[in-house]
Amino acid sequence: MSSTTQKTGFGLGNLPYGIFSTVDDTRCRIGIAVETYVLDLSVFLQQQPVQNLDFDSSVLRDETLNRYAALGQPVHQHVRAHLQQTLPRLLKQDETGLRAAGLCPRSEVLNHLPFDIGDYTDFFTSPDHARRCGEIFRPGQPMGSNFSSMPLAYHGRSSSIVVSGTDVYRPSGQYLKDGVKTFGPSQKLDFELELGVFVGKPSQRGKPIAIDEADDHIFGYVLMNDWSARDIQQFEAQPLGPFNGKNFCTTDDLPCYLKRSDGRVEHVYDIPVDIFIKAPRYDGTLVMSSNTKHISFSPAQMLSHHTVGGCPMRAGDLFASGTLSGATLQEAGCLLEATWNGIQKLELVSSQGDGASEDDVRTWLKDGDTVSFCVGGAASDIDFGACEGTICSKSSSDT
Amino acid sequence: MSSTTQKTGFGLGNLPYGIFSTVDDTRCRIGIAVETYVLDLSVFLQQQPVQNLDFDSSVLRDETLNRYAALGQPVHQHVRAHLQQTLPRLLKQDETGLRAAGLCPRSEVLNHLPFDIGDYTDFFTSPDHARRCGEIFRPGQPMGSNFSSMPLAYHGRSSSIVVSGTDVYRPSGQYLKDGVKTFGPSQKLDFELELGVFVGKPSQRGKPIAIDEADDHIFGYVLMNDWSARDIQQFEAQPLGPFNGKNFCTTDDLPCYLKRSDGRVEHVYDIPVDIFIKAPRYDGTLVMSSNTKHISFSPAQMLSHHTVGGCPMRAGDLFASGTLSGATLQEAGCLLEATWNGIQKLELVSSQGDGASEDDVRTWLKDGDTVSFCVGGAASDIDFGACEGTICSKSSSDT
Repeated sequence: MSSTTQKTGFGLGNLPYGIFSTVDDTRCRIGIAVETYVLDLSVFLQQQPVQNLDFDSSVLRDETLNRYAALGQPVHQHVRAHLQQTLPRLLKQDETGLRAAGLCPRSEVLNHLPFDIGDYTDFFTSPDHARRCGEIFRPGQPMGSNFSSMPLAYHGRSSSIVVSGTDVYRPSGQYLKDGVKTFGPSQKLDFELELGVFVGKPSQRGKPIAIDEADDHIFGYVLMNDWSARDIQQFEAQPLGPFNGKNFCTTDDLPCYLKRSDGRVEHVYDIPVDIFIKAPRYDGTLVMSSNTKHISFSPAQMLSHHTVGGCPMRAGDLFASGTLSGATLQEAGCLLEATWNGIQKLELVSSQGDGASEDDVRTWLKDGDTVSFCVGGAASDIDFGACEGTICSKSSSDT
Repeated sequence: MSSTTQKTGFGLGNLPYGIFSTVDDTRCRIGIAVETYVLDLSVFLQQQPVQNLDFDSSVLRDETLNRYAALGQPVHQHVRAHLQQTLPRLLKQDETGLRAAGLCPRSEVLNHLPFDIGDYTDFFTSPDHARRCGEIFRPGQPMGSNFSSMPLAYHGRSSSIVVSGTDVYRPSGQYLKDGVKTFGPSQKLDFELELGVFVGKPSQRGKPIAIDEADDHIFGYVLMNDWSARDIQQFEAQPLGPFNGKNFCTTDDLPCYLKRSDGRVEHVYDIPVDIFIKAPRYDGTLVMSSNTKHISFSPAQMLSHHTVGGCPMRAGDLFASGTLSGATLQEAGCLLEATWNGIQKLELVSSQGDGASEDDVRTWLKDGDTVSFCVGGAASDIDFGACEGTICSKSSSDT
């Protein structure tokens, strides 16, 4: 029997969505994480119909969340309230009862990408990240006045977005090495901690989303890792922005509902996030601790700005905050800042207690390294699941 | 009875694909343009089965070309040869016979977007365009050495890509007006002539497409108009590249098969393209004439570079050449260059023969203007169909 007092970050106040399958049933289906279980939403709503809510229930049998997300906040809030009311009773059952109710242990499920992601947009809204990137990449050029006027962004690549746990292939590309043009595997592989936002209710071309309507178009939030190859990025990025330095892989996890604590459209969420690096002989070193609050524009402001010129949003479109970095290097969201473009070294803590080795230090990611983002703080009510990926020794140019 | 000698640009050497519907049958279905007709490909292949070719024929009943395109060049070439062999006989029938064979007049069809477009990438490969943009937007900053090392690109927005003939809403946004930050409808609305390329056979994450395999992954070519708001673009574009200045609308037309005349991977296509501006009192003035050859990297090189770091391609992904501009301003592919950022004026030819008026000149596009790209040259074998759009008087901020 499950204990409802067990602290998992997946309590009734969280209830993140996902797409999952199991060994016994390989269909991709919509799930809700609760405590140590995943609830099959379609099974649940068949057995426990939600009252006074009319929607096309065929969306519950889809292999992605796109059509369900498009139903909009009123439907999701209704379902959420119904789950919060019904789940405590269901969770008190024995193993057989739990399975019959559509609940299966999270340890048994395979997660899949929650959406068929149409477009992915990466914002650039952390003032400390922007300041340091400017000092490193464009020394002597002050940040333009546009940075404070609006949430700057660039379009990213959706085809390379993967679910947490998927391996990351080290990209090859062109870059300058000691000032000489070269081609080869990136020598400056990095991560970027970001807060991602999935669009639910779509908008039409030519119809901006007003700032006070933006939250109605947001389905949920994820932690994201926008893996970056700094050498490739630096050589290619002027004048058009990042391209191959960013498009080889982006990792996301489970979309959570976040409620504004103060109801203001400028609201940013205050969620501490720890960054760990694990390696074959290193159990997992906490290298930095950042926070989702390190942004100068709120998600609602980002979405409103994105559509102000008439750009249409589809359910499943994704946008992200940009790297979340705080005032100190210990609060940076990427190695570029923490190691100051490879100059400072970060030390990993060996799990084997043996002597110092050159494997102990990192300026950039090595093959075999696993990067994990986890909600920090002892008593957080929110857990996005792991946002984790391991660098594959196979370079993309070896294939 | 149709005359096979009629010159339309839609002869048997062209056979572009599209997705169409008719008033009588509103289903979106796969069509082939031939002479003055559209052939329903599914009807055709049912009546005239192609020999020695095995593929999942359910793809022919899809509402987009995605799954058909993913089948790859061997299937498309086989179908193409079969069409070229069979169509001359079919086209000799009377009206009843033509319709029974799945041929309906092009004037009766409505075109739809050919693909569910996953990702859209915009390259920047015309040396004359790059040089002039640099002189206008970044005076005193020489073009970086990256421009000659690889085809530079940025990710674009796929949700706002529309089929030819769709109205374009003038975007609003932030920009500098006489050095002062302002918000409002763009005052510098522009077009960009580009050659677009649709991906057919997909590739996997981490598996670059080798340069000599790139053509196998290309499904077809289109003319594209990457509508641009130069004031919004200029204010937002540093350091991350264009965003709202580009993502409000992009227009494409019918995917054509183009054969390399010399078989070399560096091959660029030599297709003259005329640019017309029509306005309510102006029938259509030829304002510039450019060519698809004005690029420094071939489509095969663009695709290979795009995937060299492991970025995966899906069927229906789209990439474009960037603005096609030649050496003189009469060969420019956009107003930014032709009017030198609004300084020079272009004159329209009035259809009403009345006196000179301020409506006669353009520095940027006015509401009601229609921009059309058409293959030029008297005897071209290729016709992409119209690539055309009209600026809507309704600003996106009015809604």
